[in-house]
Amino acid sequence: MNARDLDAYCDAHQPRFVDELVEFCRIPSISADPAHAGDVRRSAERLAQAARDAGFATAELIETPGHPAVYAERMVDPGLPTALIYGHHDIQPVDPLEEWTSPPFEPRIVGGELRCRGAADDKGQVWMHLKAVQAHLSTRGELPLNLKLVVEGEEEIGSAHFEQLIEAEATRLRADLCVVSDTAMHGRGQPSICVGLRGVVALEVEVTGPALDLHSGEFGGAVLNPLEALSRILASLRDPGSGRVTVPGFYDDVAELTGEERAQVAAAPFDEAAFREVAGDVPATFGENGYTTTERRTVRPTLEINGVWGGYQGPGSKTIIPARAGAKITCRLVPRQQPEVIASRVRAAIEAAVSAAVRVMVTVGDGSRPVLTPMHHPGVMAASRAMKEVFGADAYRTRAGGSIHPVEMFDRLLGLPSVLVGFGLPDDRIHAPNEKFDIGQFHAGIQVLTRLWDELAVSLPKRAHAES
Amino acid sequence: MNARDLDAYCDAHQPRFVDELVEFCRIPSISADPAHAGDVRRSAERLAQAARDAGFATAELIETPGHPAVYAERMVDPGLPTALIYGHHDIQPVDPLEEWTSPPFEPRIVGGELRCRGAADDKGQVWMHLKAVQAHLSTRGELPLNLKLVVEGEEEIGSAHFEQLIEAEATRLRADLCVVSDTAMHGRGQPSICVGLRGVVALEVEVTGPALDLHSGEFGGAVLNPLEALSRILASLRDPGSGRVTVPGFYDDVAELTGEERAQVAAAPFDEAAFREVAGDVPATFGENGYTTTERRTVRPTLEINGVWGGYQGPGSKTIIPARAGAKITCRLVPRQQPEVIASRVRAAIEAAVSAAVRVMVTVGDGSRPVLTPMHHPGVMAASRAMKEVFGADAYRTRAGGSIHPVEMFDRLLGLPSVLVGFGLPDDRIHAPNEKFDIGQFHAGIQVLTRLWDELAVSLPKRAHAES
Repeated sequence: MNARDLDAYCDAHQPRFVDELVEFCRIPSISADPAHAGDVRRSAERLAQAARDAGFATAELIETPGHPAVYAERMVDPGLPTALIYGHHDIQPVDPLEEWTSPPFEPRIVGGELRCRGAADDKGQVWMHLKAVQAHLSTRGELPLNLKLVVEGEEEIGSAHFEQLIEAEATRLRADLCVVSDTAMHGRGQPSICVGLRGVVALEVEVTGPALDLHSGEFGGAVLNPLEALSRILASLRDPGSGRVTVPGFYDDVAELTGEERAQVAAAPFDEAAFREVAGDVPATFGENGYTTTERRTVRPTLEINGVWGGYQGPGSKTIIPARAGAKITCRLVPRQQPEVIASRVRAAIEAAVSAAVRVMVTVGDGSRPVLTPMHHPGVMAASRAMKEVFGADAYRTRAGGSIHPVEMFDRLLGLPSVLVGFGLPDDRIHAPNEKFDIGQFHAGIQVLTRLWDELAVSLPKRAHAES
Repeated sequence: MNARDLDAYCDAHQPRFVDELVEFCRIPSISADPAHAGDVRRSAERLAQAARDAGFATAELIETPGHPAVYAERMVDPGLPTALIYGHHDIQPVDPLEEWTSPPFEPRIVGGELRCRGAADDKGQVWMHLKAVQAHLSTRGELPLNLKLVVEGEEEIGSAHFEQLIEAEATRLRADLCVVSDTAMHGRGQPSICVGLRGVVALEVEVTGPALDLHSGEFGGAVLNPLEALSRILASLRDPGSGRVTVPGFYDDVAELTGEERAQVAAAPFDEAAFREVAGDVPATFGENGYTTTERRTVRPTLEINGVWGGYQGPGSKTIIPARAGAKITCRLVPRQQPEVIASRVRAAIEAAVSAAVRVMVTVGDGSRPVLTPMHHPGVMAASRAMKEVFGADAYRTRAGGSIHPVEMFDRLLGLPSVLVGFGLPDDRIHAPNEKFDIGQFHAGIQVLTRLWDELAVSLPKRAHAES
């Protein structure tokens, strides 16, 4: 398919696209901070206006008990396939602020990178979608398929009300494929399509011993220290030799990879030194024996301790045996593992590991199932062709180690498969100080998306009649 | 020796003694809080005045780079033995304030207990010493021995400048015995003399992995989590079966108890249920196999984790692999163990336990040597007789699990043995909300101290001539 007309439009309007994005990024739409609730709303309103400007027929806010989402649509013909674009307009907090080299809400372009909070995650990628639609409509007057757009305002706080929203808006959100741009490519010049996400389930452990902090001189040696008990529990959950999680039954339901899947994981090049650098200069990699680093972080389940606390954390020393100690744990899950099942197995292992000289309480938090779109799904094939045309390289089919709750919700609630075509780069520092988005990726991504609509229009099954 | 004259004086003046103590306790001399520096000074000035009022010939403040101490003396005859009284006029902070049933600096007498911060630790016990001196001088016109008094203003912040003070004032502080009232009796009606204190040494461990917090979805399973590494280190330091510290060489220098010492430890009654209650209702005791609970907390060394931190500690979940994790550890030491030696052995064990996939840094903090006054020292015998006369029971010779730095300093710097005759009770809630001091103990303690001076005057070796 020829997209020269679309490319010409995009080329001519590059500076404006960037200027608009810069303005959008000035809005500090931090969903986690109640003080920024007004900014999240402003961000939604700005986005709805931009969707109308781009050519969506309708664009409106969808209110939730938390921050508003934006919904827009342009229904061309009920007989055409329908794609639903998902993204989010809220952003991560910015602390530690002192580590930013320029203020997070004063976007700067330095060395071809747009530096600010939200540049890559996910404002830049949402903006690309608007511009791809605008390119189609400005150049050709109409889209080749029906497009819907839902942009959430609570993704960075766990999509707290998105499940409710999907349930309430199930009819409007109906589509043949969900397209998500909220991830990174495998590397620069290495396009990739993410076809799987790990699930997640969170647990919190609290160990209590004495009813109050005890003087470690008076009581030390004679009672079990909750911090010692907790350390022993946490250390017991993984075997340091094999790197395997020791929770009985943890791996029981794991779908082993097919040869083709394993080959696909292995196809994407992996550079150990580069990985260690991206992973914050860790001295060495570590993980489950018998699996590559990529497999460990994407297609194998894991159990990670996200936080531990107890006792005195200030300067100097305070000689106490603390009354309690706690830890936060999340398990990453792969296909066929169920959050509730894994949580109950981890809970049982913790309860079995604890000494009778302390008490333990395990609380299970939110969970999200793993999702996997078949590697040969027409949407994956269409995205692959669009990427190859722009980047000149075959797109790797990758699986991501993280969880994107909305993708799991679309799958579970609407039966809607997702294709994740993201244009970030692995070093974008999302969620960290000095987040950036590569301007080249921004432009290339818009080109891919303009092509994707053409490809999907012919790949996805045509509808016989209008949606009911 | 007949002390009926002294008792009659004390009986007659009981209400005044309590009123004076109440006034002294109103001063919020919290040494840890710079905002209370003026109060600590006011407390010292009030105390110096009270020492003069009690009959000390001289009483003055000794300045330090921190809070002032008070020094007083009454030299009767250079040929008589000299005792040095040690105490402290600074107090612990009061947080959490909301847990106090009455304001910590508005002393109240409820059910025979004086309730306020510092009542038992150590203002009440210092005041007893002043009143015992006053009883002697008012009744008999002179003391039977020379008395010196040093009352520190920084005990609750680790006696930061007391070593300097001892070194600068070595001549003035010279004495035959140090008498300390800053501890509790074994129980109500169960007098005890503390003859030993454990030493202590502090360490801090920091484990670092990635240079920044990593997303646990993207990296989980592929790098070693510093919290997991730290938990493994901490869990490795003690054997959960035997309850023994596993650090190689940890017990090498421990002086095993003689049969008599072990019998002495066993003599003081121990009530498991009562202990568990005092220890904050712990579900069970726990410690080194082959030793009783009392031995575990007083004559055996231990290693306790005082605090652990790392990662996310707030509400909900944050899916990170933290860049670092840390812990504070203190070891309690018993005779012949040296703080520096134990610290280096613990450090070596930690460094040996750590995986190459993370880095570890161990910092050694302050240390204090264990001290032990021989069970048959004339000062111990004198205190024992004085206690028996007042309480009608033999005093247990106990050893305390905690460390009192000044006692170790007197031993190390001046070769001065200490006898710890404290009149608190085990449930005084020192360092905690609702600290109290039993009024009956206050009066009985004054009676013991008046007798102690008589007993020491005849027990301690007479001097042939004046101090040089």
